Amino acid sequence: MTSQPVNKECRVALAGLGGVGRATATLLLSRRERYRALFGVDVHLVAACGSRAGVASAEGLEAEDLDHLEEGQTGPAFIATSGADVLIEAGPSDFRTGGPGLPYLRDALTTGRDVIVISKGALVHDGAGLSALAQASGSLMKLSGATAAALPTIDLLQYNLAGCEVLAIEGILNATTNFLLDAMIGRGISFDAALKEAQAAGFAETDPRNDVEGWDTACKLLILANFGLDAGLTIEGMQVSGIDRLSEEQINDWRAQGLVPKLIGHLRKDNGTFHAGVEVRALPPSDPLALVTGKNKAVRITTDLMGEVLAMGCGSEPRATAAAALKDFEHILAKRFG
Amino acid sequence: MTSQPVNKECRVALAGLGGVGRATATLLLSRRERYRALFGVDVHLVAACGSRAGVASAEGLEAEDLDHLEEGQTGPAFIATSGADVLIEAGPSDFRTGGPGLPYLRDALTTGRDVIVISKGALVHDGAGLSALAQASGSLMKLSGATAAALPTIDLLQYNLAGCEVLAIEGILNATTNFLLDAMIGRGISFDAALKEAQAAGFAETDPRNDVEGWDTACKLLILANFGLDAGLTIEGMQVSGIDRLSEEQINDWRAQGLVPKLIGHLRKDNGTFHAGVEVRALPPSDPLALVTGKNKAVRITTDLMGEVLAMGCGSEPRATAAAALKDFEHILAKRFG
Repeated sequence: MTSQPVNKECRVALAGLGGVGRATATLLLSRRERYRALFGVDVHLVAACGSRAGVASAEGLEAEDLDHLEEGQTGPAFIATSGADVLIEAGPSDFRTGGPGLPYLRDALTTGRDVIVISKGALVHDGAGLSALAQASGSLMKLSGATAAALPTIDLLQYNLAGCEVLAIEGILNATTNFLLDAMIGRGISFDAALKEAQAAGFAETDPRNDVEGWDTACKLLILANFGLDAGLTIEGMQVSGIDRLSEEQINDWRAQGLVPKLIGHLRKDNGTFHAGVEVRALPPSDPLALVTGKNKAVRITTDLMGEVLAMGCGSEPRATAAAALKDFEHILAKRFG
Repeated sequence: MTSQPVNKECRVALAGLGGVGRATATLLLSRRERYRALFGVDVHLVAACGSRAGVASAEGLEAEDLDHLEEGQTGPAFIATSGADVLIEAGPSDFRTGGPGLPYLRDALTTGRDVIVISKGALVHDGAGLSALAQASGSLMKLSGATAAALPTIDLLQYNLAGCEVLAIEGILNATTNFLLDAMIGRGISFDAALKEAQAAGFAETDPRNDVEGWDTACKLLILANFGLDAGLTIEGMQVSGIDRLSEEQINDWRAQGLVPKLIGHLRKDNGTFHAGVEVRALPPSDPLALVTGKNKAVRITTDLMGEVLAMGCGSEPRATAAAALKDFEHILAKRFG
């Protein structure tokens, strides 16, 4: 690290104090010395709030302050008052309404704050609107945390493959369904039994529909396509099916053939038109995607000039998502202070 | 693409007119409209040279000009006279001497030109010296083309995993040896027979030692480690072995055990110290690296917070390497004109 003189300041606010939000705050605060050394910037967490309570400090919060929230200290105006330069949005995701993150993001982008988006709801519900606000105000909008987090996905489209035309995307983007399919094909247990196991282990939600019906995968693919390829997808325009209706017969059939079923979010560009959907595909074992087991995720991108690039990976949550969001933060620091 | 007003200019020079150099020039010229639209920059190729001849034009060359070279128009002074802002270095690679690229790079970095390095020799031979020149002059130095090209590798370290600590790297970084090992294990032919086949197909060099003894892999790993992790490796300090001394017995043994041998460049960080080398490792078929066949390459990076990230891929050469070098070019344009 090259030491830089510190004469600059970056004030960060956090909306969303669930596991990922708190992990992000802790990691951010633990890296303040790094930000000073690398970018010459003093980073302060000036506000943090959940849905009903929050805490702010112009001098910057410490990790323990997040245990002492004040009721009513929340909402876009609370964040605006904090004077934050960067908003990290980590609220619950609801793609049908945009979720609680939507008003925070709209306000931040309208007033020229940079944003790091971790929840998917607002990006799916009104991605075009948010992009327009960002463009008008000059805000940066980063969204690794909303697109498979530690696995590089949106980065691949926006950075690593710059200049190439993307012809197709296939992704295993949802860990819960991948874990369930593994159990079904590997151990021959039913969908219901696998789901109960995963729920008992705290690894599937009580209401698992968002995952098992394919919507979570669809949302991630849509965000990738719209923000990475300007594809203009809508969730209604995607053919989405999940793993909840697979019969044991079908599973046994695939097993007998040596095939490995995976829930694949897929996109194809034909003559300039994008076609996208989510479905279970039975892959031959020679396909690297067939080796993406358990909580791993993967994406394969086919391009005109760089051939196929496949990325797979997995980190322990919530720290991996926090680390992905703060990777975005470093790219903002590099752009604003580099 | 957002259209930008064009009032800026970027002059590019190219040293090295082999297959990759020419593919890079052609691709660069074909993308001039893209650069105007995305960055508001008029890009001119103002000079191009091989080892003995070259051509220059202040107004910018066209692709056909590269077929009309003038003897003697070559060398760092020729490039400097062209007034280039960016040098693309695509000469032959020689890590023992630095190769013909070294004086070009030293001159460009001393005078504040940005450089895109495709050949590995200079980076292995004097990476620290080149970095120091770049830092002193404020030049950008990009080297995707020298580190497995279309496969994201140095990008992963410098961009996608920003903020994480890298604990280990394993890479299948040389296509020739991967192809040869595939033939040996898959079809049971000897190293000599596989090599003759590959040479006949134009896919292995007449003097294959650089590839089969592991040096090419070692060079790529060293560049990754030194430029991505500031590891300070020297080629002399690495334990390097190749595939040329594998016995048929050993291969048969691995096949009988269901293992897949791969030539792996490996790095590990223990208590702040880096250990790196190249050796054949026999992988279980459940390891995704075992599925990296033929001309594919792959890298697996183990981090503290984002877990393991694995990238695999392959594009058709020389266009894939040209595309990787011009990805670097877009990142330079974004930094200088974004």
